[in-house]
Amino acid sequence: MNFGSDNWAGAAPEIIDAIARANDGPAPAYGGDDLTARVEARFSDLFEIDCAVYFVATGGAANGLALSVMTPPYGMVLCHEQSHVQMDECAGPEFFTGGAKLLPVAGEAGKLTPQGVAAALAGFPHRPPHGAPERVLSLTQATECGTVYSADELKALCDFAHAADLKVHMDGARFANAAASTGASAAALSWRAGVDVLCFGGTKNGCLAAEAVIFFDKAMAKDFEFRRKRAGHLWSKMRFIAAQFDAYLDDDLWLKLAGHANAMATQLSSGLAALNGVEISYPTEINQVFACFPDGVADRLKDQGAAFFPWVTPGDPANGAMHRMVTSFKTTPQEVDAFVKSVADAARS
Amino acid sequence: MNFGSDNWAGAAPEIIDAIARANDGPAPAYGGDDLTARVEARFSDLFEIDCAVYFVATGGAANGLALSVMTPPYGMVLCHEQSHVQMDECAGPEFFTGGAKLLPVAGEAGKLTPQGVAAALAGFPHRPPHGAPERVLSLTQATECGTVYSADELKALCDFAHAADLKVHMDGARFANAAASTGASAAALSWRAGVDVLCFGGTKNGCLAAEAVIFFDKAMAKDFEFRRKRAGHLWSKMRFIAAQFDAYLDDDLWLKLAGHANAMATQLSSGLAALNGVEISYPTEINQVFACFPDGVADRLKDQGAAFFPWVTPGDPANGAMHRMVTSFKTTPQEVDAFVKSVADAARS
Amino acid sequence: MNFGSDNWAGAAPEIIDAIARANDGPAPAYGGDDLTARVEARFSDLFEIDCAVYFVATGGAANGLALSVMTPPYGMVLCHEQSHVQMDECAGPEFFTGGAKLLPVAGEAGKLTPQGVAAALAGFPHRPPHGAPERVLSLTQATECGTVYSADELKALCDFAHAADLKVHMDGARFANAAASTGASAAALSWRAGVDVLCFGGTKNGCLAAEAVIFFDKAMAKDFEFRRKRAGHLWSKMRFIAAQFDAYLDDDLWLKLAGHANAMATQLSSGLAALNGVEISYPTEINQVFACFPDGVADRLKDQGAAFFPWVTPGDPANGAMHRMVTSFKTTPQEVDAFVKSVADAARS
Amino acid sequence: MNFGSDNWAGAAPEIIDAIARANDGPAPAYGGDDLTARVEARFSDLFEIDCAVYFVATGGAANGLALSVMTPPYGMVLCHEQSHVQMDECAGPEFFTGGAKLLPVAGEAGKLTPQGVAAALAGFPHRPPHGAPERVLSLTQATECGTVYSADELKALCDFAHAADLKVHMDGARFANAAASTGASAAALSWRAGVDVLCFGGTKNGCLAAEAVIFFDKAMAKDFEFRRKRAGHLWSKMRFIAAQFDAYLDDDLWLKLAGHANAMATQLSSGLAALNGVEISYPTEINQVFACFPDGVADRLKDQGAAFFPWVTPGDPANGAMHRMVTSFKTTPQEVDAFVKSVADAARS
Repeated sequence: MNFGSDNWAGAAPEIIDAIARANDGPAPAYGGDDLTARVEARFSDLFEIDCAVYFVATGGAANGLALSVMTPPYGMVLCHEQSHVQMDECAGPEFFTGGAKLLPVAGEAGKLTPQGVAAALAGFPHRPPHGAPERVLSLTQATECGTVYSADELKALCDFAHAADLKVHMDGARFANAAASTGASAAALSWRAGVDVLCFGGTKNGCLAAEAVIFFDKAMAKDFEFRRKRAGHLWSKMRFIAAQFDAYLDDDLWLKLAGHANAMATQLSSGLAALNGVEISYPTEINQVFACFPDGVADRLKDQGAAFFPWVTPGDPANGAMHRMVTSFKTTPQEVDAFVKSVADAARS
Repeated sequence: MNFGSDNWAGAAPEIIDAIARANDGPAPAYGGDDLTARVEARFSDLFEIDCAVYFVATGGAANGLALSVMTPPYGMVLCHEQSHVQMDECAGPEFFTGGAKLLPVAGEAGKLTPQGVAAALAGFPHRPPHGAPERVLSLTQATECGTVYSADELKALCDFAHAADLKVHMDGARFANAAASTGASAAALSWRAGVDVLCFGGTKNGCLAAEAVIFFDKAMAKDFEFRRKRAGHLWSKMRFIAAQFDAYLDDDLWLKLAGHANAMATQLSSGLAALNGVEISYPTEINQVFACFPDGVADRLKDQGAAFFPWVTPGDPANGAMHRMVTSFKTTPQEVDAFVKSVADAARS
Repeated sequence: MNFGSDNWAGAAPEIIDAIARANDGPAPAYGGDDLTARVEARFSDLFEIDCAVYFVATGGAANGLALSVMTPPYGMVLCHEQSHVQMDECAGPEFFTGGAKLLPVAGEAGKLTPQGVAAALAGFPHRPPHGAPERVLSLTQATECGTVYSADELKALCDFAHAADLKVHMDGARFANAAASTGASAAALSWRAGVDVLCFGGTKNGCLAAEAVIFFDKAMAKDFEFRRKRAGHLWSKMRFIAAQFDAYLDDDLWLKLAGHANAMATQLSSGLAALNGVEISYPTEINQVFACFPDGVADRLKDQGAAFFPWVTPGDPANGAMHRMVTSFKTTPQEVDAFVKSVADAARS
Repeated sequence: MNFGSDNWAGAAPEIIDAIARANDGPAPAYGGDDLTARVEARFSDLFEIDCAVYFVATGGAANGLALSVMTPPYGMVLCHEQSHVQMDECAGPEFFTGGAKLLPVAGEAGKLTPQGVAAALAGFPHRPPHGAPERVLSLTQATECGTVYSADELKALCDFAHAADLKVHMDGARFANAAASTGASAAALSWRAGVDVLCFGGTKNGCLAAEAVIFFDKAMAKDFEFRRKRAGHLWSKMRFIAAQFDAYLDDDLWLKLAGHANAMATQLSSGLAALNGVEISYPTEINQVFACFPDGVADRLKDQGAAFFPWVTPGDPANGAMHRMVTSFKTTPQEVDAFVKSVADAARS
């Protein structure tokens, strides 16, 4: 009963196979190889636009490097107060940008709204050069609370941002789950809605270590390659990231893996919602279920070997009672049923 | 009717005279002169403790450099959401620290409380190395809202901070106003209450450009001189900052200047409070008055040449209607009366 | 005839197999898994000392992160003027350290000497806080010129460094080649000689993407995990780096791969040295051969599809005529012979 | 006999008077005052071009901030190996730029040549993104060795730099001395020769604390004000720097002060050159004399209270025997004569 994180699941067999296949023969280093060029080009097909694509190994690198070309070091990035860039990257965005300021903004269930962002801006008015000038709005799709922005919601946010002279960054560590959940196209959930730069994640969804930073306006990418290199994120054997994405995009593997994980979460959420005393905290829209259990239940489950963690939020209205369960491409319906049954048993005892 | 900022007032004549006097004869550069050594030592007397003292020219430099030795670049600094370090230094603390994160915390009238800080910490739990580890609590005394922490309030905050393994930084740009307001000693409002590093301001209170960074634990200061130098904040002709502080401390000039400014604000606040439709927003405890005026009043006053600015806060509940009036060592009772009368007239018309 | 870089060779089959095997079952993320713990411990065995070990994916990350805990941001790192940290990391060490200064030092064939370092220090005397205080001596083993420090040479350098209050960093991107070349133990070429922190490379020698930062004084590592995380170098699926090193250390695979590459370079160097008009520029001690060819030879070889690059050095006394040929674990004797024959033919025509 | 540094001399009386005069009445803060605007405009007159001007208090701030807008954080700045930015700012340029790399270049008597810079570039070839891309050539006028670039020499260097796509920064801490020495106009020694950004110093030449960063291409200055603010270098009472420059430019005071200091150095240099066993190390072109004394002479002079310091250079061919004597606007012919006589006596004993 392993719901600790989608990161625990290892890599999909197709990904491992692709890595092994890519190991055939010599290839120029640092991304100068044919495979890398070919796979980069596949993103232009997937997103239906000529875009600039850069591969890195981690989501923290993708976000930090993307932001570093979107804001000057004295600029400000508005983000959700529960966002990964704010809470889980150990001040990584501040590091990559050379000291830009993150302004955390509140919003229901992990989602920002134009109204929420407007209020934050109103409280941090332009007074050059005193306040750090706002330059970027960072959104997470799907959000850290397991919710998803619709294409319309994204468009409203991006329109607002652009009107306020902000660029839009999207942390897409679970972009695949959002795409699978909504059925919307990759383009609809990104540049067509107004996103300027997307960090398209692979690692949480079955890749070994593969993230793509996608610039829909290629001019914005002009110094990315220098920044990636000096941050130690340019792989010498780049073909091994490219190979992962090659397999990931083949036959919509990325959507299949995410779709399965999402379905398992839906099953889990329904099962838990039916139990007395269990409260689902946020709508279950991707592969994450947030729930509050009756006293003592979490401990009993952990004693039985179930893996999952408490989820604490700014202000923490749940007083530590909320937990997050994450499903993955490897989660089975049986595993979900067993977990629901264990919760039911624990709640009863 | 000049209430724009205490920075508009120029320098006190005693300060200018001291600078002129200090210009006599050659003196070693970069703080190696006798005057600098002598004035640094005066701070140990004033604060009743053997402390390490470093002079710089601006408050932004003092705060940034102080924080840069109090937190590692990946650490987190908790501060009030309206604090100067958060809102008015153009991401300066992030720059000086090499990318530390500032976590804004709410609190009434510019003041933090142990409960408020505890709630912020609870919502940003320790998960090394994922979240930036909290290292510093930054307080402003007097606050940006013109309020003052009592020695007891400070002690409660510092005790809480130390128990949570945080160092305490105090932005004392208007420390003199707080001391004059409370009558408490410099020691009582700083290290005796638990403050680790104090940025003791002179510039807003009649100096030309003089701030002192004071380490009550001298061991904490060990690399400050390198950081000050590389940031371009080590004056070659350091005696000219030392001379300012020499005069500033003579005969309690610092308290006299601040006391006068405070008294002028009290007079202004009382006068305004008596007017129909004027609302005093925060308690007037130092040389700043925050007030909401009836519609159109602010514009009419400005047409008459009065200088003051709107004060916008996070969330901005006053919808832009709040204004800040700042008095200085130069403000006269006549100037205050004239302003109150102008407001009364404008409110009537 | 592929002598462009050891990075072109892909990964050894044992490494790919180990990655595939490590994919079995769930495992905690971010290095909390058993395999990571077990492989980290193997380094203490290999180096015959209880050391702290951290895995990252690239050599630039290893060097930059290691240096960032060895020097304050205002410190100075002395390194060879041809070193990778100076010439090939796009100011990466400056980035990771938050702005430390690199002081390039000359030395024959890529090697520093105590005399050379002493001369550099003499020309950059202590004048705190004016000059950046020197804190680290960075050595590359084997060097960028394909030469190797003996254990005695290392000891002399480290003794000198420690006497001057410098910590010693070793860029060991080709440490395996140095070990295979000298036959000395891993301990003899590192901490026993006085090295404080070693970046032990795997990627250039048959790994996919695997570097280990090794602290022989565990206390020095205390904030490494925060810095790795915020720089985006903490893998969520860390077991996939650990697995590479597991295979790399099994049955001395690391020495076997490096030994083969070294032998191929020796064969290449001997073959070239015997040709008229070809000059070997540096002693061939590992898997790199540096040579000057007669005019036009390099172009003719490239027309035939041979891959190798010019090697330009500070001052460039060879006027662009020097080239570097790198062998790898995959290079065959036949490939070497073919290349030598091609050079002979081209030189004749 | 005070030849320690021009920084020891305090401020010229005209400067102190101007500060006192500027203290009359209230004035908007942060450079919004009339005096600041008026004095900024005077620089356009002085330099015969419409330029953007920013005041700061120290030369380290001027250089660091100027460079921070001239190079990206991953760029490279070529400078003389004895330059102030390289040797005396405690890694300040690395700090302000966010980690740019300084490449020290050799050159006779503190001066760079197109040939020397070309050789340095040849040894650090373009290999994007591996090497830090060169972006700036930094020159010091007058140099740290007391020599002066002629307008023609500057033009040759700037032409070379621009052809290599480098911007030209000039550290003009002693620009006044160079102008007084050559008789060339401010324009001829700066933008007409090709300089892009000039740090025009006042502090070493009789100001209290006043430096001006001058952008001859105003478009390059676009984010300077944000960077100055976040580095704590925007004075709230800016009029007090403006006032210094106002007096400094009146009646060519800047040239008169520098001319006097230069003349004193000429007298000193001639006097010393006539003594047996004293060797003048560099041509005396401004207010600095570099000389090697016979053994024991320096110590004897210091015992008599003479102030001056050893001057150590990279490689230090003089083995610590070279000393620097600096004259100032306050130095008297009698003081010079006394020093020469003391050297003569000490050399004889």
